[in-house]
This record gives sequence, C-alpha cells and structure tokens, in this order.
Amino acid sequence: MSELVLVGIGTGDPQHLTLQAVRALATVDLVLLPRKGEDKAALAELRRAICAELPRATPLPVAEFDLPERDPATPDYRQRVDDWHDAIAAAWLQALAAHPAARRVALLVWGDPSLYDSTLRIADRLRPAPQVTVIPGITALQALTAAHAIPLNGIGEPFTVTTGRRLRDHGWPPGVDTVVVMLDAGGAWQALAPEGIEIWWGACLGLPSQQTVHGPLAEVGPRILDVRAALRARQGWVMDIYLLRRAAR
Amino acid sequence: MSELVLVGIGTGDPQHLTLQAVRALATVDLVLLPRKGEDKAALAELRRAICAELPRATPLPVAEFDLPERDPATPDYRQRVDDWHDAIAAAWLQALAAHPAARRVALLVWGDPSLYDSTLRIADRLRPAPQVTVIPGITALQALTAAHAIPLNGIGEPFTVTTGRRLRDHGWPPGVDTVVVMLDAGGAWQALAPEGIEIWWGACLGLPSQQTVHGPLAEVGPRILDVRAALRARQGWVMDIYLLRRAAR
Ligand SMILES: C[S@@+](CC[C@H](N)C(=O)[O-])C[C@H]1O[C@@H](n2cnc3c(N)ncnc32)[C@H](O)[C@@H]1O
Ligand SMILES: C[S@@+](CC[C@H](N)C(=O)[O-])C[C@H]1O[C@@H](n2cnc3c(N)ncnc32)[C@H](O)[C@@H]1O
Repeated sequence: MSELVLVGIGTGDPQHLTLQAVRALATVDLVLLPRKGEDKAALAELRRAICAELPRATPLPVAEFDLPERDPATPDYRQRVDDWHDAIAAAWLQALAAHPAARRVALLVWGDPSLYDSTLRIADRLRPAPQVTVIPGITALQALTAAHAIPLNGIGEPFTVTTGRRLRDHGWPPGVDTVVVMLDAGGAWQALAPEGIEIWWGACLGLPSQQTVHGPLAEVGPRILDVRAALRARQGWVMDIYLLRRAAR
Repeated sequence: MSELVLVGIGTGDPQHLTLQAVRALATVDLVLLPRKGEDKAALAELRRAICAELPRATPLPVAEFDLPERDPATPDYRQRVDDWHDAIAAAWLQALAAHPAARRVALLVWGDPSLYDSTLRIADRLRPAPQVTVIPGITALQALTAAHAIPLNGIGEPFTVTTGRRLRDHGWPPGVDTVVVMLDAGGAWQALAPEGIEIWWGACLGLPSQQTVHGPLAEVGPRILDVRAALRARQGWVMDIYLLRRAAR
C-alpha cells in the first residue's frame, strides 16, 4: 500500500457523498471494511450500499477485517485506547496482506475523518507509513443544523463542540452561548439548569429512522429522552447530537 | 416561490459538491446568483462553473441580483447588519419578480449554510415565508483539517470555533486546548503569547491558489503573514482559516 485514502461518507444518507469521494472510490484498488457487527447493522449496510453503487468499470474489491475489542483489563483509559488503536492498525495490515497488489486503499469514515474519529490516529501507526489523503465528509453537526435549518453560531459569536461526558462532568463550557454535544451516552444535558436554554436535537440523522426535536430544554428535554429510548429499543442502538443555545449574557 | 433551497457548495473545489446538492440543483426551477463583484471574481466563477456542469436536461435558469452595500452611516453594528439583511431579502424578491413561474429556487452558499453565513437569517425575512430546505456542504474547517490530514479535536476533548476579532479582543478562549479561527482580517494570533502553540493554517483551500503552513506558532507565524500578503497582493483578496492547539493543561 502506498496511499491510504480516508473517505468521509457523511452520516447516514448515501447522498451525503461528495463528488470527490465518489471519484476517489471509483479509482482506488481496494476498500478496507470492518466485518459486520451485530448492533450497528444499519451503518455496515450503508457502507456496503455505497460500495455497490459506485460508477466503476469493475466492482470495488473489499478486504474485511475484524474490529478488535478494547481490553477492559487495562485500567488506564488513555493506555486502553492506545492499545486498541495499535490492534486496529495490526488488523488492517493483516487484511491487506492478502492483497499485495493493492496500492491505493480506501477506508470509509463515518461523517468527516477529522471529527471525533480515530482513523487518522490509527493510520499514523502504519509502518512503512503510506501517504494519507483525507476527503472531507458531511458531519453529524451539519446534518443537525441542516435538518433544523438553523445557523450554528450567533452572528460573529464563537461556539464550542464537546462530548456528553464533558458536559456532565464540567457543566456549560465557559465563554460561549452555543454548545454542540456529541458522543452522549444519553441526556447529559440533565446536569444543567435548563432555564433559558433552547435545544435542537437530532438522532439517526440522514437515516430513515431520523428524529428531530426542538424547543425550550425544560419543556422538551423529557420528550427527547423518550424518543431516544424508543429508537434505541427498536434499533438496538442510537446516535444523537444536539445544539444548546442560551440567551447571550 | 414555494421552496427556497440553500445549497452548501463547499469552499472552492467544485468536487466538494455532494450528490444531494447535485440532485437539488438538477431539479430546481431557478438559481439566484449575486451579480459578479470586482474583488472575488474566483468565487463568482466557481458558482458559474457549478451551474454550467450540472446534469440537467435544460440549463439551469439564473436570476441575478445586485448585492446591496452595508450603510456605513448606521452607527450601531447590529442595526447595520439587520438593515443590510433586509436589503438583501428585498433584492432577492426583486430579482424573483421576473420569474413568477419559478416555485423551487436555489441559492448557492459558500461552504455550509450553518457556519458564519447570513443566508438563513435573510431567508427568515421573506414574506410569505417559503419552505426553507438546507443542503449541507463541506466547510472551510473540514477543508483545513483534510488538507493537513489532522484530527480537529483531541481524543474526547472539546474545541471552540471563533473569529479573528474575538481572538484579538478576548485572547485564547477559556476551557479548550484547540481553537479554530475564521473570519480573520489578518494575523489575529499575534495577540497571543505564541509559546507552546502549534498552528495549522490554510488559505484559499480547494482553489488552485491553495496554501498551507504548519508548525510552532512562534516559528511559522511571520511566514504565514508573508504568504497571506503575497496571496492578497496577487488575487486582490484572500480567505484563510487556522487551527491552534496548545499542550493540554
Ligand atoms: C465517533 S463520533 C463520529 C462523528 C463523525 N466523524 C462525524 O463527522 O459526524 C459519533 C458521534 O457522532 C454523532 N453522530 C454521528 N452520526 C450521527 C447521526 N446520523 N445522527 C446523529 N448523531 C450522529 C453522535 O453524537 C455520535 O455519538
Ligand atoms: C463568511 S465565512 C463563511 C464560511 C462558510 N460558510 C463555511 O462553511 O466555511 C468566511 C470565512 O470562512 C473561511 N473560509 C471560507 N472559505 C475558505 C477557503 N476556501 N479557504 C480558507 N478559508 C476559507 C475564512 O475564515 C473566511 O473568513
């Protein structure tokens, strides 16, 4: 492998693919895909649908790898993630060993490869180091603001993007009136006093099961928890993201 | 007009267009384009190139409008922007008056319509209110991280997106080690003590004149100012964006 192309594929809608992504996937020699897991079958299906519909003379050859598990026996969080990334890099190389002629290899990355995604960090572990090319993709954040047809920022104002865990542990981030929360295990906003906060929430954006809710947090917060729980019960998984805005201080 | 479709077109590379954007532009009745200004001819050209290359049975009809100027006589900043947005909405309606049969009308928005862009706020002024549909587009932020092949956030860490003016006036935003700066009139980072800060800078991303610089801020800051000045001298304009990261505290 001389080049690894990380292709952002958007967040569920195959139409999120950019022309640049289509062109890259039409010309690479191979695509590396994780073997289908149990829970997020819809995501694996999207990857397969994208590969199947490419405008290529020949079907895109696929190399599958088993995604390793994180080792719960490693007590330190950073160390656990580091070890896991090492193991994924090794799994890629093992899968590639069966395709010695493949020079340009693609990985399909959910959303955009720069945003809360470890593919770039795993790619950095490969030796010899291939050239790494990144093709940007539509993020969950953009899918959220598009679904609600809202601006992300106040005019000339900053915003912060953070995780559910950080919101729960540290409260409203300092210095901003707009916060976007990703990677929330569920309802981290409950750590905030809801008065004066508006929420724009979205789950499974771009997928057929997409749900959105908007309103004052105090009013719609409980409903969002219900919609979220119903989605999770039906699908076995749920991905959600939300924007919180408070009146400027 | 019954529907206004705000189409994010990415930040300079026509290949940033998503399949969703191509499909929308292939089916709308009309596109509203600002008349070519003097300074940003390259941007107007991109819009025209996109319209010209669409897979349509018939060419996409275009309605041109003159972009009003902000009135420097209005002292209050908010008021000046508000008045300007009113004037733009009026200019759209005037241009549309010549196309009474056009029901679905598109506007091509640089990058993503949610990010530091006023199109959504202007669309909110239209009466009777059309349905507003947003099609997300690749942002300058993603073009930056893709060009440098870097992650945006630290693992599980938050980041803040802000403007050059805010960085200059308020310094490093509180509570984050990663900051993205947009809308900088030039070198706002000079308000910071550069020690321990790394910068990933990009100008005219996606365009043939694209430039990137990366390194310790203390070392590469002056060079970035030179590259920026040279671009501006050559083109008459420059757009840049940068990511600043400091060691976690
Ligand atoms: C590991 S991060 C990956 C983000 C991705 N790289 C992107 O650009 O959006 C996963 C988080 O992204 C958000 N997310 C991704 N896809 C989503 C979708 N279709 N609907 C709602 N949230 C989504 C959720 O917050 C989820 O916890
Ligand atoms: C009015 S904002 C529009 C942002 C746009 N909606 C987006 O999604 O990127 C303009 C700012 O975006 C950034 N920008 C837009 N296009 C760019 C490009 N091609 N290269 C570098 N920066 C760009 C610059 O910071 C510029 O000052």
